[in-house]
Amino acid sequence: MNLKLIIRVLGFLIFGEGIALLLSLLVSLIYGDSDLPAFIITSAIALITGGILLLLTKKAVKDTGKRDDFIIVSFSWIIFSLFGCLPYIISGSIPNFTDAFFETISGFTTTGASVLTDIEALPYGILFWRSFTQWLGGIGIIVLSLAILPVFGIGDTHLFMTESTWITPDKISPKIRQTAKTLWLIYIAFTLFETVLLWTGGMTFFDAINHSFTTMGTGGFSTKQDSIAYWDSSFIQYVIIVFMFFGGTNFILFYILLKGKFKAILKYEEFKFYSFFILGFTLLVFAGLLTTTAFGIEKSFRDSLFQVISIITTTGFATADYLSWTPILTILIFILFFFGGCTGSTSGGIKIMRIVLLLKNSYYELRRMIHPNAIIPVKFNKQPVDTKIITNILAFFTFYFLFFAFSTVVFTFFESDIATSMGAVASSLGNVGPGLGKVGPVENFAHIAPAGKWFLSFLMLLGRLEFFTILILFSPSFWKD
Amino acid sequence: MNLKLIIRVLGFLIFGEGIALLLSLLVSLIYGDSDLPAFIITSAIALITGGILLLLTKKAVKDTGKRDDFIIVSFSWIIFSLFGCLPYIISGSIPNFTDAFFETISGFTTTGASVLTDIEALPYGILFWRSFTQWLGGIGIIVLSLAILPVFGIGDTHLFMTESTWITPDKISPKIRQTAKTLWLIYIAFTLFETVLLWTGGMTFFDAINHSFTTMGTGGFSTKQDSIAYWDSSFIQYVIIVFMFFGGTNFILFYILLKGKFKAILKYEEFKFYSFFILGFTLLVFAGLLTTTAFGIEKSFRDSLFQVISIITTTGFATADYLSWTPILTILIFILFFFGGCTGSTSGGIKIMRIVLLLKNSYYELRRMIHPNAIIPVKFNKQPVDTKIITNILAFFTFYFLFFAFSTVVFTFFESDIATSMGAVASSLGNVGPGLGKVGPVENFAHIAPAGKWFLSFLMLLGRLEFFTILILFSPSFWKD
Repeated sequence: MNLKLIIRVLGFLIFGEGIALLLSLLVSLIYGDSDLPAFIITSAIALITGGILLLLTKKAVKDTGKRDDFIIVSFSWIIFSLFGCLPYIISGSIPNFTDAFFETISGFTTTGASVLTDIEALPYGILFWRSFTQWLGGIGIIVLSLAILPVFGIGDTHLFMTESTWITPDKISPKIRQTAKTLWLIYIAFTLFETVLLWTGGMTFFDAINHSFTTMGTGGFSTKQDSIAYWDSSFIQYVIIVFMFFGGTNFILFYILLKGKFKAILKYEEFKFYSFFILGFTLLVFAGLLTTTAFGIEKSFRDSLFQVISIITTTGFATADYLSWTPILTILIFILFFFGGCTGSTSGGIKIMRIVLLLKNSYYELRRMIHPNAIIPVKFNKQPVDTKIITNILAFFTFYFLFFAFSTVVFTFFESDIATSMGAVASSLGNVGPGLGKVGPVENFAHIAPAGKWFLSFLMLLGRLEFFTILILFSPSFWKD
Repeated sequence: MNLKLIIRVLGFLIFGEGIALLLSLLVSLIYGDSDLPAFIITSAIALITGGILLLLTKKAVKDTGKRDDFIIVSFSWIIFSLFGCLPYIISGSIPNFTDAFFETISGFTTTGASVLTDIEALPYGILFWRSFTQWLGGIGIIVLSLAILPVFGIGDTHLFMTESTWITPDKISPKIRQTAKTLWLIYIAFTLFETVLLWTGGMTFFDAINHSFTTMGTGGFSTKQDSIAYWDSSFIQYVIIVFMFFGGTNFILFYILLKGKFKAILKYEEFKFYSFFILGFTLLVFAGLLTTTAFGIEKSFRDSLFQVISIITTTGFATADYLSWTPILTILIFILFFFGGCTGSTSGGIKIMRIVLLLKNSYYELRRMIHPNAIIPVKFNKQPVDTKIITNILAFFTFYFLFFAFSTVVFTFFESDIATSMGAVASSLGNVGPGLGKVGPVENFAHIAPAGKWFLSFLMLLGRLEFFTILILFSPSFWKD
């Protein structure tokens, strides 16, 4: 284990967080708000800690082993959250450490579950930092899964990218730095574009940029207690619908689009199924709302589309309370908690690629039974999928349902209501945000016991890093030399 | 397609059912009950129909294709239920066709979900026939999965048997007929043994034989409305516990035991995990009951063990209402709805072998990530498992959760309560019997709308035949020449 390099990378990240905090400091300065000291102290702590760690590890050898990579990835989210929760505590916005940590990891994992009961009362700097954690978490996971992990030869995206699809990281850019930079630029461009649209749609500039951050990160934090329902504007809702859809798309597609290869996008199966599932679920919910409510066609359609995209992309913004709908629609929405958007997007959950491969494999298995001697591999983007990927998906799927089932059992210690327990666990694992019952879209997580909040924080991290990265640390053979 | 042979085999099965009905006729005769005409008519119909079909197809070529096998297997359960529901209708015990068919397919699939609200009022012959359907369904699935399907080269047991385990059908017996016969004899021996024990434990001889039928078939029909709770006897409960455990065991193990190979059993991983899961869940529920009720140690232990074994083996007998327990225990029990016993047993559900392979594959996947270049196959009974089996399990698992999720959505049309809907669907798919909410262990299925009953009947059949056999009939390529 190259401990020196691990510390160096983490030091680099902490230093980077310090710089990010300076941006919030600037916002606080502009609005002349009470949270200025909190940001001065926190960015100083982060910059100094990061700086010292960088200086101490100057002579670190640049070579990392696989084990080091897993440790760096797992700990970076935890360390980001540990430093990131300081502004909440110091400013007194969330004085309790457990609550502040929960809010921060919920931000960085782009979950969006909140303990806040009066969001509007918070100072501007804090609100900005809260949204910014989701934006950083979003680009963090994109760069990690599309640029860094494939080069290290780990991660599921690597499997998908090099084995099963026609897009390999090499084809995009020969250098990690270059790939990462392009992905950042696309991300920033979308964020700016959405900000302008929301601003012209009637939001203040501040609200517009905050919501753009949390839309692109598919996080779902809002500057208003009522979330998007606060603005009674269908224009704002449609804008957010479109950008949530973008947030749940594989960012490689935008890269390809930039190069003008429009036809290539159409060949990309995951995107086609992503659009198809959204359309299908929206139509089902739309039909349900039309027949059970008096909302009328436009509002029924908009509410369906908004909630379906918000949940499938694991954003979690609300314009309607799906718990107040007829049970069949609530279950439909709950099924979407497990979906997630495309691989290489900012969304969580199982992800469309895995779901499509699961479904295809099941269909192919029927064909295999009819022709038992034929070798019938699952095809994706017209290429056969390696069985390595199939066993990986099986493992992922098993972990997902194992953790879902047993965490629901464990969570009833904190919330005895089964629906609340299922909702909180599924929401945390999938990085969605709202859940069912007492943690529904118009509720929050403030009333959960401290141990319950730590438990959900762990589940958010587990879901965000797709199980393996975290669980591998608990595997005895990982620590053997 | 060899239609003539398909009809011949089905004719043979109908004729066999006619003979089985004669046994119920005999019971009716002995007790001098009102249901005698119903059995005379039904067995006459079955014997004559079966006989005619056999005579008409005398010249059928004995060679069947794979397609024919799938059709025979799928239709045999439906045809058995169509003839088997006649006694209920003719005797007036269940005058409604939908209800009678539901009760019969619930019997033959060894589910145990019932529409009866006053079981004790039924005549003896009908009660006997009802229990007998579960006994026949139980041995039917054992013979099918252990003796017939492997020889045809289809079915999951075939995969497990010839590919992944050290027990191949060939090693047991060179002839189907011989294997099947031995399995029958073991099954009959257990049934007789249990009958004697229950009889000495205080049941009437009639109740004893009926409960032995439904225990060995892991069906769960009882001659009493209160199920096993009717007898306030811990002896009876422990006897049933032991035989439910046997019913959920792979019958091949008893075959090996007969040959005196005790050590071989200990090597058999599925059996070890089966025992381990029962022990683990019992201890969890036991701890829960001890801390939340005033039942005392013995009753808490007995209730835990009974309910855990009853649900994991998908029997469904009740000595306690798990819905009245604290939510955490209800969820633990509900998780068991998906387990099922061993392959080659009479139980339904996902089955221990699949669950163990799922868990092992997940664990191995972590090792694969640490050593990406090593080929690390899952091992079972110390032998590497073919990836063919992994893709098959993935397909099975996907179908299971797909049907569970979407059937729950569909079922809310009939029962708007989510828990009831989830419970009814999981119970039917796993062939358990009782569910949650309004179809809990002290409730019944009488109040479900007719279309809902047909829907659940379909799910029972789907679960009993492990999805593929039924779903393959809906696959276009199945019907292509």
